[in-house]
Amino acid sequence: MKKQPETAIIRRITPSLDNARYAIKRAIGEQVVVEADIFKEGHDEVTALLKWRPVGSKTWRETPMQPIGNDRWRGALRVTTAGMWEFTIEAWGDVFFSWQHELDKKVSAGLQDLQSEILEGCAFVEAAAARASKKDAALLKKFSAALRKATPEEAHVIAQDSVLCGLMAVHADRSLATTAEPPHPISVERERSAFAAWYEFFPRSAEGKPDSGSKFRDCLGRIDDARAMGFDVIYFPPIHPIGATNRKGRNNSLKCEPGEPGVPYAIGNNRQGVNGGGHKDVAPELGTLEDFDWLVGEINARGMEIALDFAINCSPDHPYVKAHPEWFFKRPDGTIKYAENPPKKYEDVYPLNFHNDDWRGLWDELRDVLLFWCGHGVRIFRVDNPHTKPVSFWEWVIAEVTAQFPGTVFLSEAFTRPKMMQELAKAGFNQSYTYFTWRNSKAELAEYLTELTQSELKEYFRANFFANTPDILPEYLQHGGRPAFLIRAVLATMACPVYGIYSGFELCENSPLPGREEYSDSEKYQFKGRDWNAPGNIKEYLTRLNAIRRQNRALQEYSNLRVQVAENDHILCFSKTTASLDNVIVVIVTVDPWQPQTAFVRLPLAEFGIGESEAYVVEDLLTGERFTWRGSRNFVALNPHTRPAHVFRVRRWQDRENGQDIFA
Amino acid sequence: MKKQPETAIIRRITPSLDNARYAIKRAIGEQVVVEADIFKEGHDEVTALLKWRPVGSKTWRETPMQPIGNDRWRGALRVTTAGMWEFTIEAWGDVFFSWQHELDKKVSAGLQDLQSEILEGCAFVEAAAARASKKDAALLKKFSAALRKATPEEAHVIAQDSVLCGLMAVHADRSLATTAEPPHPISVERERSAFAAWYEFFPRSAEGKPDSGSKFRDCLGRIDDARAMGFDVIYFPPIHPIGATNRKGRNNSLKCEPGEPGVPYAIGNNRQGVNGGGHKDVAPELGTLEDFDWLVGEINARGMEIALDFAINCSPDHPYVKAHPEWFFKRPDGTIKYAENPPKKYEDVYPLNFHNDDWRGLWDELRDVLLFWCGHGVRIFRVDNPHTKPVSFWEWVIAEVTAQFPGTVFLSEAFTRPKMMQELAKAGFNQSYTYFTWRNSKAELAEYLTELTQSELKEYFRANFFANTPDILPEYLQHGGRPAFLIRAVLATMACPVYGIYSGFELCENSPLPGREEYSDSEKYQFKGRDWNAPGNIKEYLTRLNAIRRQNRALQEYSNLRVQVAENDHILCFSKTTASLDNVIVVIVTVDPWQPQTAFVRLPLAEFGIGESEAYVVEDLLTGERFTWRGSRNFVALNPHTRPAHVFRVRRWQDRENGQDIFA
Repeated sequence: MKKQPETAIIRRITPSLDNARYAIKRAIGEQVVVEADIFKEGHDEVTALLKWRPVGSKTWRETPMQPIGNDRWRGALRVTTAGMWEFTIEAWGDVFFSWQHELDKKVSAGLQDLQSEILEGCAFVEAAAARASKKDAALLKKFSAALRKATPEEAHVIAQDSVLCGLMAVHADRSLATTAEPPHPISVERERSAFAAWYEFFPRSAEGKPDSGSKFRDCLGRIDDARAMGFDVIYFPPIHPIGATNRKGRNNSLKCEPGEPGVPYAIGNNRQGVNGGGHKDVAPELGTLEDFDWLVGEINARGMEIALDFAINCSPDHPYVKAHPEWFFKRPDGTIKYAENPPKKYEDVYPLNFHNDDWRGLWDELRDVLLFWCGHGVRIFRVDNPHTKPVSFWEWVIAEVTAQFPGTVFLSEAFTRPKMMQELAKAGFNQSYTYFTWRNSKAELAEYLTELTQSELKEYFRANFFANTPDILPEYLQHGGRPAFLIRAVLATMACPVYGIYSGFELCENSPLPGREEYSDSEKYQFKGRDWNAPGNIKEYLTRLNAIRRQNRALQEYSNLRVQVAENDHILCFSKTTASLDNVIVVIVTVDPWQPQTAFVRLPLAEFGIGESEAYVVEDLLTGERFTWRGSRNFVALNPHTRPAHVFRVRRWQDRENGQDIFA
Repeated sequence: MKKQPETAIIRRITPSLDNARYAIKRAIGEQVVVEADIFKEGHDEVTALLKWRPVGSKTWRETPMQPIGNDRWRGALRVTTAGMWEFTIEAWGDVFFSWQHELDKKVSAGLQDLQSEILEGCAFVEAAAARASKKDAALLKKFSAALRKATPEEAHVIAQDSVLCGLMAVHADRSLATTAEPPHPISVERERSAFAAWYEFFPRSAEGKPDSGSKFRDCLGRIDDARAMGFDVIYFPPIHPIGATNRKGRNNSLKCEPGEPGVPYAIGNNRQGVNGGGHKDVAPELGTLEDFDWLVGEINARGMEIALDFAINCSPDHPYVKAHPEWFFKRPDGTIKYAENPPKKYEDVYPLNFHNDDWRGLWDELRDVLLFWCGHGVRIFRVDNPHTKPVSFWEWVIAEVTAQFPGTVFLSEAFTRPKMMQELAKAGFNQSYTYFTWRNSKAELAEYLTELTQSELKEYFRANFFANTPDILPEYLQHGGRPAFLIRAVLATMACPVYGIYSGFELCENSPLPGREEYSDSEKYQFKGRDWNAPGNIKEYLTRLNAIRRQNRALQEYSNLRVQVAENDHILCFSKTTASLDNVIVVIVTVDPWQPQTAFVRLPLAEFGIGESEAYVVEDLLTGERFTWRGSRNFVALNPHTRPAHVFRVRRWQDRENGQDIFA
């Protein structure tokens, strides 16, 4: 038999991931609305508290939960600092409030002989006084004394006294309270994890030279350009030594010509010796570790942050191959196996065996790689193909790294089946690549945006909307021309607080390998000449979008997106609002990159705090234009070439001064 | 870091109650269809096994699970004996089947240099041989030898050999398998817990004498009558000594005339001394404990079983009051509080305080009461008002009792809010009273029957449909006359494998207290004269219904009820079928006790294994009539007085002999 029998029942707590096994995610300042089934036997008045605290703190914060019908209760908490928090629920049958309720019924029924009941109440109040601070105890004793000599009617009034009730709530008898176990963890993201604009470029391409690579010391121009556009995370594909054995040539050719730079994902080159040339080194052609440190300092000085790629790939020349052959998969003849996806072969990459006999040694080493770069100022890692490594590894390594370097951010590049992507997010990845790249029609976008922000996913799976990547040139961009780039830029920036582009997007680069969603002459395999200010670029548009994001709090929140009605299958309308409605944004964007489109859109005015017949102003933040609308249904005309989108800030009527209407 | 990193992910197992905290319920022979999200990193072929066993057994039974899309897997198990079982899932990335899959892709792509791959396969087969029995090992070694000298094409064929695949599945390498924790419990009900017809009567009313009570030795007539009607559980309200202090008189009068028998729920009378006269005693007016033992023997000899009431109520005269005053609630003046529901007072009942300082003593004593009656042959307890005692008490006491007396059945009489009723069922109650009594319209019945048998409730909440109780004379029965009794009898018997009536139902007793759903002159408070064969009784109809239940397996299953379309708001149609379709029952019943009703009903013929244009026979098991129907839509005419229902057994066409159609 248990020591203390459970008295209250607390079940079906939401949000809850796999019975509190995993943490939900929140940004600083965000709410968690917690619900649970709470009840107990008999007729006692139940009190339930929502309790929360940063993990490690000894003190719970508490707020009462309210019943919302059918024994379901609700309460809300707010997290205020980054890091791991936890919440739980405590409930009990409250003797005082049960007594108050019974007394009320008896007095209302006209019962007179209530001396015993009144003395019972005194006892409860005195017991609370014994638990209370000196000041509260004195107050409580006064109530008890008054109660003791009260008539039933007087006792009835005293029992309902709001000061007494407040004190009795604070000093309640919780000796038989039940607390839900285990507590539910909440991972609170630091600001740049929750709101950021990523710009990805290959440092060797910084200057856009067609025949040779740039170095770390040459990157400031590209970084300043990105900063001017409004980006604040600079993300580099792997910067480590690139293998020589089976090095790939341009367009993934098996034959590599002399001087070709190789694929940065074929990591490791032991020419620098057994202890060098791997994941803890920089490619000599980019510079030295000192150069890298200098660059990180320059980036930070600009108010930006660097993100590195964590790609667990080893070239045949990686130092691990000689030092730890047991970490790799072997053929029957004892040689190491390269990666395959039959019939495709990847002779330049050796996969690692995470369950080899020395798996602890391997896991520790990979953790140490991350810690090494954390030691060099890196706090964001974009993880390459995490879904081909055990989820248990990620859960472990992310916990290990964040224990030493709190706030380290991990982005999961898992383009795979939904449940694996979700599990990685649960296991600790702060952000995830998504299917956004392949959601292009209005119907697809509406469904996907709703799933991400309204389903259980919103609790733990936080999207990073990349519009393109070095591996993905979506068909939509291949065929839609410059308008397609504008449209995708609007969608990525406005729908998701964290998004990114891979450099070249701003130049509308869209030349594919025939029949593929890949770039021709991809800079993964070669040097690439570029004019970073080539005509037709959309840098100004991106700059404007990034500025709008920074100036509008509603665009920095994740789960506040709601798809609205637009009466045209090519026009998507969605709103994002702050809880206080001080920032109401409505985005109306065509997804047709070819033809002009018009639509009536319908806005939920009541939700925006606007009466149905009231005038309000929509200000297009892209152009500065202002339109006065009235009623929920209004007309818009979009043109993919000149005006692919409206980004409206909705301004409510506030006052009238000097015959002029003022809109907030 | 964990000892062995988890390799497969197993999540969202269903059915699962509060993360395997509580057991789901099944009858002997029933299936559990288990689903889960199962996947792992990378591209390995995943194998998943559903495993189950009686708790305590060392050996798991196993069956492969099958993927059903989107990383969801499904498997089914069958429980074969009463008692507690458990299931879990084991999954792993299978090296052999991954190899087979890769070899297939390589051979299909025309690759020729596969010597290394073939040797790898040999190694897997030989490793399996090392794990296998001698006989299997010999077979496996033959395959390995053949493989070793095979061409790629030959190896491809060998790798797909069904004998080899079967052996490799049986002797798979599970060294890196993941097993879901904790295992999920299954409570398998014994036969009479899953299928029974209860008949409740007050033993003191056995002979129907108006001025004096019957004794245990007088009960055989009533029991034989119940048996003749087809009942197999005889349920007695409390049989213990009845308190004298504040004894209630007829119709719940505060004044009790001399000679009035009192309420059996006011338990305890210390006239027999401190150690007697409580929950472990029989009321002397019913006889002795020896008489009770004799009666239990007679009931069992008739193939029936007794059910006792477990009512944790104490009269002021209960021995506990003197022996354990600390078990009760006290007033400030030290006197014991009686039960109240303000402004109502129950001066004849002292409630017990389950959290008093000696709560262990109280809990142990209550367990001992149950064990005492188990020792006297009782294996079914109907528990009075369990929702006013802690759920944790029930969870504990049911486990304690069933550990010593396996198969003891507990019926929860909790007419309260849904979540408490559900929690009690989860905590261990085998059966539950329901809202059935107050579901009278077609729409209400259709919704409630569907909720009970199709929602998550079906996994653990097993209804016992009582048509009336000593406390409840539903309005429907008060006003609907004899047809109402026929209709409710059809519903209770046909919709639910376990049901009950309180005696007098068969006589259509329906005289209420004015404006209440209670009986006037209730025998809870007085002796009651009755003619058990009074004219207008429905004993023959009940007898027929009980016989139909026994003869039709589909009516003995719980979750197989499906509401079907009847094109009339007063006619309810539902089907119950066995999985093999060897027993297909369709019940069509009017819920209008006044007027004749007609309807077209629509049957899901394909689900019954009948073609849309095929002829089939419906045999009315109540009358023996047979109708030949064709097509899903057919006409019925019901009359509440003469034919309130059809209970059809659907007979499919089987053969034609001598120009005659034969229907199964």
